[in-house]
Amino acid sequence: METAQFRLAARPVGMTKESDFERTTETVRELNDGEVLVKTLYLSLDPAMRGWMNDAKSYIRPVQIGEVMRAGGLGVVVASKSAKFAVGDHVSGGLGVQTYWLGAADDRSAALYKIEPSLAPLPTWLNTLGMPGMTAYFGLLEVGQPRSGETVVVSGAAGAVGQTVGQVAKQLGCRVVGIAGGKDKCDMVVNELGFDACIDYKNGDVRAGLKEHCPNGVDVYFDNVGGDILDIVLTRINMKARIVICGAISQYNNTTPVKGPSNYLSLLVNRARMEGMVVFDYADRYPVAAAALGKWLKEGKIKSKEDVVRGIENFVPALNMLFEGKNFGKLILQVADQ
Amino acid sequence: METAQFRLAARPVGMTKESDFERTTETVRELNDGEVLVKTLYLSLDPAMRGWMNDAKSYIRPVQIGEVMRAGGLGVVVASKSAKFAVGDHVSGGLGVQTYWLGAADDRSAALYKIEPSLAPLPTWLNTLGMPGMTAYFGLLEVGQPRSGETVVVSGAAGAVGQTVGQVAKQLGCRVVGIAGGKDKCDMVVNELGFDACIDYKNGDVRAGLKEHCPNGVDVYFDNVGGDILDIVLTRINMKARIVICGAISQYNNTTPVKGPSNYLSLLVNRARMEGMVVFDYADRYPVAAAALGKWLKEGKIKSKEDVVRGIENFVPALNMLFEGKNFGKLILQVADQ
Repeated sequence: METAQFRLAARPVGMTKESDFERTTETVRELNDGEVLVKTLYLSLDPAMRGWMNDAKSYIRPVQIGEVMRAGGLGVVVASKSAKFAVGDHVSGGLGVQTYWLGAADDRSAALYKIEPSLAPLPTWLNTLGMPGMTAYFGLLEVGQPRSGETVVVSGAAGAVGQTVGQVAKQLGCRVVGIAGGKDKCDMVVNELGFDACIDYKNGDVRAGLKEHCPNGVDVYFDNVGGDILDIVLTRINMKARIVICGAISQYNNTTPVKGPSNYLSLLVNRARMEGMVVFDYADRYPVAAAALGKWLKEGKIKSKEDVVRGIENFVPALNMLFEGKNFGKLILQVADQ
Repeated sequence: METAQFRLAARPVGMTKESDFERTTETVRELNDGEVLVKTLYLSLDPAMRGWMNDAKSYIRPVQIGEVMRAGGLGVVVASKSAKFAVGDHVSGGLGVQTYWLGAADDRSAALYKIEPSLAPLPTWLNTLGMPGMTAYFGLLEVGQPRSGETVVVSGAAGAVGQTVGQVAKQLGCRVVGIAGGKDKCDMVVNELGFDACIDYKNGDVRAGLKEHCPNGVDVYFDNVGGDILDIVLTRINMKARIVICGAISQYNNTTPVKGPSNYLSLLVNRARMEGMVVFDYADRYPVAAAALGKWLKEGKIKSKEDVVRGIENFVPALNMLFEGKNFGKLILQVADQ
């Protein structure tokens, strides 16, 4: 049995290219005691992956040249010499961009955990019930701290994190305004996900949109994009507003310095704060978020929207869809049938 | 009796010029019931005054063309038809750039309050026991929230707010590193004010200085200057660091857009926050800060350093000293002898 892998071959400059990866195949070795073999079914494609390819100090160490590209994923255990997981179990964790993952069941960097396919479709476990959902839940509640009746604005509203941020904020009784690229995404955000409004930054004036749809100003801004949109929202924040810095997808492929928010002194004028968050800090409390999100999903109060691309060979173009704004919901790469 | 005034004649572009003001004199009218006449002794010169001259939405309304320039000050009551203040009382409040202030004793925008000259020299009431001291105290304690043993960095360390931020942080058991312009200021900050170190941004490498003097990173950064220094400090912050945005003196005379912090994504990586503050929010608790700062002053644990320029006619060049970094301690304009 063989496993096929994407290994980082070069540190990308700007957008990731096929030539930044080497494709390898290896024969799967025999398992040692305590190990499991996981067949990759789905891989999560996330904006953060672009940052992991850079040789820069961050919240996680960079992927090394020659190393299998890091990726979260979901698979099925096909061989096990561990009491932790049985053959047939579905697990989620850091599988990497490869068709099979082999290692200790308690490997700390993979951090595998069992998921229950009976509770939700598999892709949902990489979205609302996975890292994006956890990020949205803790970023909004712990850092954004919205109160009922406040106005919450979220960029990347049709994306993995944004969709759940907005839907959870609605559950909390907030007015929710999304920012997304294109009419179709905005329609989905409003009509399917139930946001109060969505501003199409590609075909409209974000400043005018905020004025129209946030008549009482912005109390919480959950930022996934950075760049000009962050700067515009800063001009509309209320006193004591909270800005959650979750990501800056507009800046990740920059070959020039990151654009800092010129309007940051709005924080001073409004006694507001801007705070970063990394989901891993909340790992102890993932079950709390999963329980709440799972309940809302089951009751039909929130939805999990995924955009599934098939075939590990499409890894690079699929990843780039994120930065081109082409994905419609959480982007997932399907590596094998279930 | 006449009062001489500086009235805003034009909105400055870049640095303030003499021609941006019209100098007027008026005969002081008779007092009505409830009014007082205050002879201006000292005026506080603050970086924020530059912002008040711009026609822009901020935490306080702009000074209007033709209006007496707003300024905090300290004076002596020379006539009174109010039970609130007696002739001979020393009062502090929004006197404006004029030799006499006349108005209702309870005027809300002047917000006059009585001070006790026996407790501290008059200039100290515009510094450690005035707005700069209150700003330092509440900005550091409420927004910066330093803990004993943490490293606190403050820019504008020899200035009005910075000097007290650093000295209070020392009282709390923090390691304190200042950033100031020039060897003389840095020597004063270390030798007279007791900071652990001071980085001379005009004659040294701030990045290298932070590396040397903050071996454990930066937990709290109290920012009075913005610009490149803010960006450099962002590269050295610790996990869960707090950045207090108190001012951005490097940007106030800009004729180009404010420089936003390019390294703001360090907030994300470090789960850190950047928060603005305006001292007026803490008005109810000024007595608490004044009591603590007054006690430390009396015990010789902290010092109040002022740089006094004489003569209301020097208002414009004196104000510009702030932006040229020429003041040595809190800058005060002495308008009359006591």
